[in-house]
Amino acid sequence: MNDEIFSFRSIGTIYSPHNKISSIPIQPVFCNDIKGSIVLETEYKDALRGLEGFSHIYLFYYFHKSRKVCLRLKPYLSDQEQGIFASRAPHRPNKLGMSLVRLVSIEDNILHVMDIDILNGTPLLDIKPYIQRFDSRDNVRSGWQDTIPEDIAVSRGVREYKAEEM
Amino acid sequence: MNDEIFSFRSIGTIYSPHNKISSIPIQPVFCNDIKGSIVLETEYKDALRGLEGFSHIYLFYYFHKSRKVCLRLKPYLSDQEQGIFASRAPHRPNKLGMSLVRLVSIEDNILHVMDIDILNGTPLLDIKPYIQRFDSRDNVRSGWQDTIPEDIAVSRGVREYKAEEM
Repeated sequence: MNDEIFSFRSIGTIYSPHNKISSIPIQPVFCNDIKGSIVLETEYKDALRGLEGFSHIYLFYYFHKSRKVCLRLKPYLSDQEQGIFASRAPHRPNKLGMSLVRLVSIEDNILHVMDIDILNGTPLLDIKPYIQRFDSRDNVRSGWQDTIPEDIAVSRGVREYKAEEM
Repeated sequence: MNDEIFSFRSIGTIYSPHNKISSIPIQPVFCNDIKGSIVLETEYKDALRGLEGFSHIYLFYYFHKSRKVCLRLKPYLSDQEQGIFASRAPHRPNKLGMSLVRLVSIEDNILHVMDIDILNGTPLLDIKPYIQRFDSRDNVRSGWQDTIPEDIAVSRGVREYKAEEM
């Protein structure tokens, strides 16, 4: 067992209309057009140079409301238990969240994004650009996810989200 | 400035033929068939359930040899300075690495993978499955990356890697 600790700091805050965990769709693909913003600490403003040319970006963040670790759980889209590493659920050994969102615009140290599935007030850890030649794959098998029909994935994936609540 | 620190622990170790940083291709797409393995701490074995059905997985790790932060730098594929958040380079405020690799097989707590672009001995932080319906995007603009022709990207992207050196 390796006891080394790696320290990450918040580099900004993610703002979204999602204030209730159970009402957040489980992934950005089920968050069509939901708007959010990221306020980056001003000291990192320079690190955004060139990002405005990307249509999609990965946000990495800390699941700050997750208080437990579940090595197995039943994901929203599955009727069977899966290992946490075969799912995107928050209760992971290291509470790292990733969302692939659409970048709308950047104003100074503020990023405006769409398709956000992140709890309001979540601490941001990193931003990486989505690069078609690096991040897109063909001939993919998606394990237990492939057994879920698209209509069921959509209806379960939005969870209790209702646009009018926001 | 938010001073909260988020602690991550190594959950395993990534092994690869890459022992010299300057010889590592910059991305898995330039690491065709290079084999690696991940030895997960045995306490997390249960968390792998169901992962074997996925052909591709994201590995998240700590850039443990990066000793500095560069807010702007010239990425390998670019002739111009870009912000670190518009690049995938290691010298980030939080030293989070991500690689999308092919999963070949899982034996007990060991994962065999291909297309690995990670330094031998790197501490693993998280594994997430690549899920076609969540992670693939159409109509993508990839900013400055779109200005680099594919042949130049490939020739620069492999860096000093030579298969026979390994």
